[in-house]
Amino acid sequence: MIEIKGGLTAPLGFKASGVSCGIKKSKLDLALIFSQFPAVATGLFTTNKVKAAPVLLSQKNLGKGQTRLIVADSGNANACTGEQGFKNAQKMCEIAAKELNISSEEVLVASTGVIGKQLPIDKIEKGIQMAAQSLSSKGSYQAAEAILTTDKGIKEIALETNIPGQGGKKVRMGGIAKGAGMIAPNLATMLCFITTDACITPDALKEALQKAVNNSFNQISIDGDMSTNDTVIILANGKAANKQIKTWRKKPTLRVKDENFEEFCQNLNFLCLYLAKFMVKDGEGATKMFEVRVEGASFPKDARRIATSVANSNLVKTAIAGASPNWGRIMAALGSAHTKIKPEKIDVLINNILVVKNGQSAGEDLLKVRESLSSEKITILIKLNQGTCGTRFWGCDLT
Amino acid sequence: MIEIKGGLTAPLGFKASGVSCGIKKSKLDLALIFSQFPAVATGLFTTNKVKAAPVLLSQKNLGKGQTRLIVADSGNANACTGEQGFKNAQKMCEIAAKELNISSEEVLVASTGVIGKQLPIDKIEKGIQMAAQSLSSKGSYQAAEAILTTDKGIKEIALETNIPGQGGKKVRMGGIAKGAGMIAPNLATMLCFITTDACITPDALKEALQKAVNNSFNQISIDGDMSTNDTVIILANGKAANKQIKTWRKKPTLRVKDENFEEFCQNLNFLCLYLAKFMVKDGEGATKMFEVRVEGASFPKDARRIATSVANSNLVKTAIAGASPNWGRIMAALGSAHTKIKPEKIDVLINNILVVKNGQSAGEDLLKVRESLSSEKITILIKLNQGTCGTRFWGCDLT
Repeated sequence: MIEIKGGLTAPLGFKASGVSCGIKKSKLDLALIFSQFPAVATGLFTTNKVKAAPVLLSQKNLGKGQTRLIVADSGNANACTGEQGFKNAQKMCEIAAKELNISSEEVLVASTGVIGKQLPIDKIEKGIQMAAQSLSSKGSYQAAEAILTTDKGIKEIALETNIPGQGGKKVRMGGIAKGAGMIAPNLATMLCFITTDACITPDALKEALQKAVNNSFNQISIDGDMSTNDTVIILANGKAANKQIKTWRKKPTLRVKDENFEEFCQNLNFLCLYLAKFMVKDGEGATKMFEVRVEGASFPKDARRIATSVANSNLVKTAIAGASPNWGRIMAALGSAHTKIKPEKIDVLINNILVVKNGQSAGEDLLKVRESLSSEKITILIKLNQGTCGTRFWGCDLT
Repeated sequence: MIEIKGGLTAPLGFKASGVSCGIKKSKLDLALIFSQFPAVATGLFTTNKVKAAPVLLSQKNLGKGQTRLIVADSGNANACTGEQGFKNAQKMCEIAAKELNISSEEVLVASTGVIGKQLPIDKIEKGIQMAAQSLSSKGSYQAAEAILTTDKGIKEIALETNIPGQGGKKVRMGGIAKGAGMIAPNLATMLCFITTDACITPDALKEALQKAVNNSFNQISIDGDMSTNDTVIILANGKAANKQIKTWRKKPTLRVKDENFEEFCQNLNFLCLYLAKFMVKDGEGATKMFEVRVEGASFPKDARRIATSVANSNLVKTAIAGASPNWGRIMAALGSAHTKIKPEKIDVLINNILVVKNGQSAGEDLLKVRESLSSEKITILIKLNQGTCGTRFWGCDLT
């Protein structure tokens, strides 16, 4: 795997654009991501019970088969907007479909911004027309800019991978994301759009995306408030013409994968994790990222709950910001997770320095820990010493 | 019910004291609460899996029968201190028991402060001796001061209730608490000690305390980090000589209560809610309190999850601090609770102004809402319109 330039438009057969249509004042606020060829697609969406209209419509359209286009706006979330909101989301798809001569069911839509206001659909109509005109095989950066809200920086990446495609060329994937301020109190909507020219079945694509999201966006420390609009979409148009990547059910209980599936997954994981870490670092008030590693849990869900609890703990976040070697806060945070743990078995290492042994002070010189906390990369390792399950989680400090 | 003076020592037969023994610099840091007569007692403790030594010991001693004394220190939590910590907690009980000529199993202990350090047991020994000497029927205020850490103010209350006791006198209860900074990122340990001269069975006392805590301390917005030391204890010494308050099981499925049980519960609820609200208001960075009322939930747990999610939401807290009528944050917060809700049925009222009708904007002038948010008392009413269950929750804003 190597990193290449071009973001979303690095894979063959994709164009993108970003324009300013007036939802936000003099900033890019409307993006198109277009596959020149029919593509398979899959998506993952917010688990918030209050789902925005674009989420509901994209989920519906994904069920209809192929996808060619993503249309996204920033500045207005089109959430809590009722029937009119859903009609407006549909209208976005129809306008875009007409411009690009495709079916409106081949369009997915995403929005981010203020909740509860109807979209300025006339402005958006003009925006989509402009954006369709300016679609370009170098348009990824503009699209990445047009989906930002409170983000400090553009989040874009592209990779080339070791699955041989047409003419000896390898397979490519590209992605953009938004979602700064993942830390309290400014959690924003998370959007991520991914393109690939890999040839892959819808089932394999779905499985790969779920895995990658579980290992990236679902492993970063976020506030309790999931957004109404969170959306991750991947389009795969097969233009690399590699041997189709497949997974299939051999027996009811046995799912098998072909030789290239793991390679594809590794790349997608890397891409999603890169974007997820970028979001963590981009958080308002964040100066340092930290990794929470949990080992020795009895069950995967215990490891996950503990890692989440520690990475989300405001007490831990502020201790890290202040380079305070206060491991008591880590113990209090891990104890508050809903798990069965034996405190007297727990060891905790901060930047490889043992601070807690068997649930109590390891007697280590905390000055050393304090010094190590001034570095940019911080790891909290929690050894539960009860089982064999573990996980990793990323959070940022809170100043 | 009327409010009276005297705090913990308003009920007959109780003495209290607070002294400075040197755990903290020149501040009161050690409290005793003593019943001159044998008392029944019950307690509720942190659900954190990492429990401090005093919590473990108090739970053990409560199982032994009667209680006469509570000894509490502030400045050192005696948490994550292993066997030595447990021995130190026992030593605190033994020293205090010796001073007051009672059994060490009649002593309960509570601590709050830094995690992971062994108690300075010599200082504490001297402190307990001093505190025993200065026990007084006017000592509640000193005890209340001696348990504080980051709190801004002393939290104390006493009530006289309508249950006739000896010589026509009524029954009294008093309480003190600590627990400021319940808001992120400065959540502190919550301690609450209650005394009453009511004559009541242990079973009835236990039931009453559980109810009161559920309706007060468990209904305030706190950070995810439960403390390792949270403790609520009530002592009832029967000196009012009222007709004993009882609850009993008539059939396996039917629990009955005598005529005065409800009156006792109402008073205990009032006392606990007063102290809980005091804690909310005392939070660092808090300027306003708000109430979240949920109605029309299908199940009590749904109502509770939604109220918690909204009251704990940093997005909602900051909106209230800024008097922002941003109801989208309320919708996003309630949607993130693990419940089954129908967003299109939800109405939301902020200070009695309908802002959301059927899950979308009610078209109300938000300027009116903004103005109302500058008042000191704020109510968010969420009508789910799905069932008949509801709850109330209290939170504070975040500046």
